[in-house]
Amino acid sequence: MHLVIDSYGADPSLLASVELIHTFLDQLPDQIGMTKVAPPQVYTYRGQKPHDWGVSGFVLIAESHVTIHTFPRRGYANIDVFSCKEFDAQATIEIVTAAFGLERVSSRILDRGLEFLPSAVPADR
Amino acid sequence: MHLVIDSYGADPSLLASVELIHTFLDQLPDQIGMTKVAPPQVYTYRGQKPHDWGVSGFVLIAESHVTIHTFPRRGYANIDVFSCKEFDAQATIEIVTAAFGLERVSSRILDRGLEFLPSAVPADR
Repeated sequence: MHLVIDSYGADPSLLASVELIHTFLDQLPDQIGMTKVAPPQVYTYRGQKPHDWGVSGFVLIAESHVTIHTFPRRGYANIDVFSCKEFDAQATIEIVTAAFGLERVSSRILDRGLEFLPSAVPADR
Repeated sequence: MHLVIDSYGADPSLLASVELIHTFLDQLPDQIGMTKVAPPQVYTYRGQKPHDWGVSGFVLIAESHVTIHTFPRRGYANIDVFSCKEFDAQATIEIVTAAFGLERVSSRILDRGLEFLPSAVPADR
């Protein structure tokens, strides 16, 4: 299950905060019943176009990941929550919306391949 | 642009190799015209179900990321290449296919939000 979020109209100061994004990535897995495998990695990115700077972050969770890329000058952030385990997409969207004060959220759920492969599991398991 | 790859039938020994996955993540950005922001992070994951162990990796590139999660016992891997910059999806799929000896690749391209926001860029930039 892969939840893809594109969000607009966020408070730029929240999108620019490395500390907030680290806390968000650190806490989200527990909030949606996932297990962190490693601490979050968060970096500030400064690109060739001045308005495209932002914060990028990542946390690895069991079999899966959460990523975020923010663009404070555009009020835009994208967030991916990808897990082979089911999770509550609506609750996740509400946590993200509250964390960053989002005005508009566009989300999609993608089915990924793993669930289509039960026959590939050896019979001894 | 977000290239979503689900692949099947890979050589389990390749999918199990932390070294190969680190090299793949280290080299792919250059191969498709991207810039790494930080070194790849690669971890072996061992879950509650023995057949769901695998290798998870991530590399942050400018404004974007590449992720991979492999499941050697299932011959399955998923790969996401997400960038706000255009890149050659077909070339990327060929690199992935060659790196892991993939038999079948299912891929999709998602449009993400940033390209719809030119008006959000302040007039002074």
